[in-house]
Amino acid sequence: MNEKEKTKTTRRSSSSSSAPAAKRYYKKKTATAAQETASKTAAPAAKTRTRKPREVKRTPVRIIPLGGLNEIGKNMTVFECANDMFILDCGLAFPDADMPGVDIVIPDFTYVERNRDKIRGVVITHGHEDHIGGLAYFLKKINVPVYATRLTIGLIEGKLREQGLYGKVTLNVVEPKKTVKMGCMAVEFIKVNHSIPDSVGMAIHTPAGIIVHTGDFKVDYSPIDGEIIDLARFGELGSRGVLALMADSTNAERPGYTHSERTVGESFDKLFKKGEGKRIIIATFSSNIHRVQQIINCAVRYDRKVAVFGRSMVNVINTAIELGYLKAPDGLIIDIETMNRYDSERIVLITTGSQGEPMSALTRMAMNDHKKVNITPMDFIIISATPIPGNEKFVTRVVNELMKSGAEVVYEAMYEVHVSGHACQEELKLMLALTKPKFFIPVHGEYKHLKKHAGLALQMGIPESNVIIAEIGNVIETDGAKMSVVSQVPAGRILVDGLGVGDVGSIVLRDRKHLAQDGLIIIVIGIEKSSNEIVAGPDIISRGFVYVRESEELIVEAKLILASTLNACSAAELREWNTLKGKMRDALSDYIYQKTKRSPMILPIIMET
Amino acid sequence: MNEKEKTKTTRRSSSSSSAPAAKRYYKKKTATAAQETASKTAAPAAKTRTRKPREVKRTPVRIIPLGGLNEIGKNMTVFECANDMFILDCGLAFPDADMPGVDIVIPDFTYVERNRDKIRGVVITHGHEDHIGGLAYFLKKINVPVYATRLTIGLIEGKLREQGLYGKVTLNVVEPKKTVKMGCMAVEFIKVNHSIPDSVGMAIHTPAGIIVHTGDFKVDYSPIDGEIIDLARFGELGSRGVLALMADSTNAERPGYTHSERTVGESFDKLFKKGEGKRIIIATFSSNIHRVQQIINCAVRYDRKVAVFGRSMVNVINTAIELGYLKAPDGLIIDIETMNRYDSERIVLITTGSQGEPMSALTRMAMNDHKKVNITPMDFIIISATPIPGNEKFVTRVVNELMKSGAEVVYEAMYEVHVSGHACQEELKLMLALTKPKFFIPVHGEYKHLKKHAGLALQMGIPESNVIIAEIGNVIETDGAKMSVVSQVPAGRILVDGLGVGDVGSIVLRDRKHLAQDGLIIIVIGIEKSSNEIVAGPDIISRGFVYVRESEELIVEAKLILASTLNACSAAELREWNTLKGKMRDALSDYIYQKTKRSPMILPIIMET
Repeated sequence: MNEKEKTKTTRRSSSSSSAPAAKRYYKKKTATAAQETASKTAAPAAKTRTRKPREVKRTPVRIIPLGGLNEIGKNMTVFECANDMFILDCGLAFPDADMPGVDIVIPDFTYVERNRDKIRGVVITHGHEDHIGGLAYFLKKINVPVYATRLTIGLIEGKLREQGLYGKVTLNVVEPKKTVKMGCMAVEFIKVNHSIPDSVGMAIHTPAGIIVHTGDFKVDYSPIDGEIIDLARFGELGSRGVLALMADSTNAERPGYTHSERTVGESFDKLFKKGEGKRIIIATFSSNIHRVQQIINCAVRYDRKVAVFGRSMVNVINTAIELGYLKAPDGLIIDIETMNRYDSERIVLITTGSQGEPMSALTRMAMNDHKKVNITPMDFIIISATPIPGNEKFVTRVVNELMKSGAEVVYEAMYEVHVSGHACQEELKLMLALTKPKFFIPVHGEYKHLKKHAGLALQMGIPESNVIIAEIGNVIETDGAKMSVVSQVPAGRILVDGLGVGDVGSIVLRDRKHLAQDGLIIIVIGIEKSSNEIVAGPDIISRGFVYVRESEELIVEAKLILASTLNACSAAELREWNTLKGKMRDALSDYIYQKTKRSPMILPIIMET
Repeated sequence: MNEKEKTKTTRRSSSSSSAPAAKRYYKKKTATAAQETASKTAAPAAKTRTRKPREVKRTPVRIIPLGGLNEIGKNMTVFECANDMFILDCGLAFPDADMPGVDIVIPDFTYVERNRDKIRGVVITHGHEDHIGGLAYFLKKINVPVYATRLTIGLIEGKLREQGLYGKVTLNVVEPKKTVKMGCMAVEFIKVNHSIPDSVGMAIHTPAGIIVHTGDFKVDYSPIDGEIIDLARFGELGSRGVLALMADSTNAERPGYTHSERTVGESFDKLFKKGEGKRIIIATFSSNIHRVQQIINCAVRYDRKVAVFGRSMVNVINTAIELGYLKAPDGLIIDIETMNRYDSERIVLITTGSQGEPMSALTRMAMNDHKKVNITPMDFIIISATPIPGNEKFVTRVVNELMKSGAEVVYEAMYEVHVSGHACQEELKLMLALTKPKFFIPVHGEYKHLKKHAGLALQMGIPESNVIIAEIGNVIETDGAKMSVVSQVPAGRILVDGLGVGDVGSIVLRDRKHLAQDGLIIIVIGIEKSSNEIVAGPDIISRGFVYVRESEELIVEAKLILASTLNACSAAELREWNTLKGKMRDALSDYIYQKTKRSPMILPIIMET
């Protein structure tokens, strides 16, 4: 880390001129500890030494994360240089418990919409929802070319079809090692390992220097498709000089290494033996094509047919077979309609629902609500996934229900039926060691993950001032010598509910939560326009508050209280509807709280007749 | 396990006469494998041999779990023999995500209310909410004496005070090893280890035999109070003959042993060293008095004062000090009002909020919303707990926020800052081996836990027919020879929301969930009584549906659709209000779904003027 230390020193000693440090960075590691100390103590000398004619003022580059920092999901980053911009990934996030009714969450596109003319395209690292799920919404606003590897493009096509955009967008397949021009920047695709095939990281070649973005990655020395992460290329870039590394922080809290996907295959093998004589059902993520491949391999080995359940599982498997990412002998995968022709101990079902999603195939099987599959003690079920935080209770419920039907369910870590797709601490250190970045920006994670990842970088000698824990909307600017957050652009979350994009905001959510908490009481009165007399009501209607039949007394008394509140009103007060509504609301809410210690939403409605 | 195997065989071969098997059970282990085989193959001989004059017909005993099976929490079991009944534990459960607005869940008391005259009392195993939280609600309905150990009684007193029942209920302190008479049954208290002091299991001496109920337990050979679980007594009972064991299944999925509480103290010691120069804040469960004792011990050792935050923490600590369960030198615990007089590196804060509960002290500190405590980089924070399933996201949010304020936060397993209070597999086996029960009923757990625990019992040789995985409301009857589920009584969950107990049921919850999901649209029209004419509206009011200002067009068009629906109605249809409401609801809901793919609750209100 001497080189970097030195660079930093240089930067500090020549803050007015940024070029020297950046230029020096491209040199091979030549500085020794002694030299470094020298340069530290003799800054003016170093300054003089670096002023050479080859030095150029570099065009600054701006990195603007619009999602994926301090949160899990909706990964999206803008890269900007002079008049050129491009987007790296455009994902969705799944709603939290405090967003009732919301289907998905996408990034706020305000900043990119304002700069639509500058955008040269979108590059995508891999085909997971948190990287492609916002793309269709983005492309509806700004139609620019999309660049990704073959499988990723295949999965994006499916998304565009659903949104009626198919054929309207230019999709470009890019092989790893190839580079895409984005105006004055160029994006090089670099093979990485992850829980979906065809994942890549990116080396972004900019006038200010090379920025490496890992995408989601892990290091798998024995991947199912045989294609090991291109560590050599990351190392080559590191030797040439990497200005900044942006790396996946998802597993930054976990020490050690993530196991190879192949270990899951070994567990499957044991479990297929154990499940002999029974029907085997395996739930996993539909996008984990290597996992599916290993199930298929086991099915071949143990002479079972494979039936596929769940819409997304069927879609992804079809795409993967079509594009050659999944290999199955002819006749192995059978139609679920013909499943009954086979003995059930000769069948493996592959299904969605590994997260206990309420509408998924596995959940419906567990709840005895699936048309084709009835769970019995003759089922051997493997949940090949770990619950994503927040889903624990859903998964547990499904496990309990499956077991109640007598099935054997394997869901613990004891059989290693799942491995993560993200790098653990030792792999993160490897990436830092290979790329030797001057600056480090941990990405993809909550604050605690970013912080831990930053801690690893510090341990490895990157100076604290060169580690940037950013927030979405931060504009991180670099000229190759310095890097810092210089400003802020609009960023946040846009909620998608049904067809509505952005029409559910904080007020709507606040009301939904209030309604969920204590329900609602509606007060209705009718006032005659000319005479200003109350001609109808007060009536009370409630929903989600109490079981009315058993609380008649409460409702009757509430009406009496409202009536006496209205009686006490002067003619003038009856004309001031807002005041009148407030009076009714206050009277009723006091009474209700005193009687029940609850605060339902109270909606007074005045009808003018 | 030969003895038990044999007993089972005998039971089978003499199903008409139940006494012999039960009687034989009281004998010491004398049967050999050879004998067993003999008795299996020569059932008639065995039958003859067991018909001795000493055999008596035993009065059957009924065990009726009303909570704690196939769920976590609201533990409650009824024991019934002849005209006597008593209750073991009366806890609450915390609401699931599908019970919005519900504060707590308690058992359905219908069956005990129907038998109020038979109830001799309530025995309580320990002072956790899931064992005492329903007690006040129960005692309001049926005022019977309560029997528990000293600390448990102290905590119950607090509960009764809150509910205005203090002084109105007979509370009896019972020491471990003592026995309480419950009509024809007697309940013996047996010391166990758990995450709250003064926990006991129970040996229930009945005419049909001894039933052992472990309560919540673990085996701690180095407990903080020096009082090791009374394994000897469990063994003594096992030697005499235990008819049935009911044992805690919470950790039945975990192999090995639960670590001693003392290991947490060792971690605290290391962390107090690590946190030198900083203020230390430790969040834990208020009821874990031994944990608090260890924090106090560290505070003494490292010369820090202790300040206590959070209502329940203050209450429990006060009770525990008063009753002598917590020992702190005079002047060690300081008032939070005087906290500022001390340097912050000389202070430890003990606080609630280890589960990220939104209103807890720690959460308010994290959100910069606490009046007394402002988190800075000079804070060293330990979350001494693991998230209860369902709370993961709350805890994570708190950790992220604390870290954003620059504090160091220790929350991982790496420091062993928490140990479970429940027995793991090896301890569960130990309990089975000591008590050698004829019948086994796993309790306290979801189905998957009960099933795993049952599996351990099978491994240890208890025949499958003698293991009963029950459900709440099941009536498990035994005459000492046989044990089976013979019938069913009402059982379920009663929801408590504010002051309302049971007035929130499935309809109210369904409405709350519907309102939370898509909000609400109210349609109001006024109809003149005599002329049957529409004199006002249709008006539309919505809440939690869309941000109305940005959806004006939608609302305007919705009104037009309603107006034309009403116009198309004949005079007769205008008189049939239910039909009219249905028409309006259908027209609006079709339109809204088509435009938004959402299904808000639609409430048509007709005012008669």
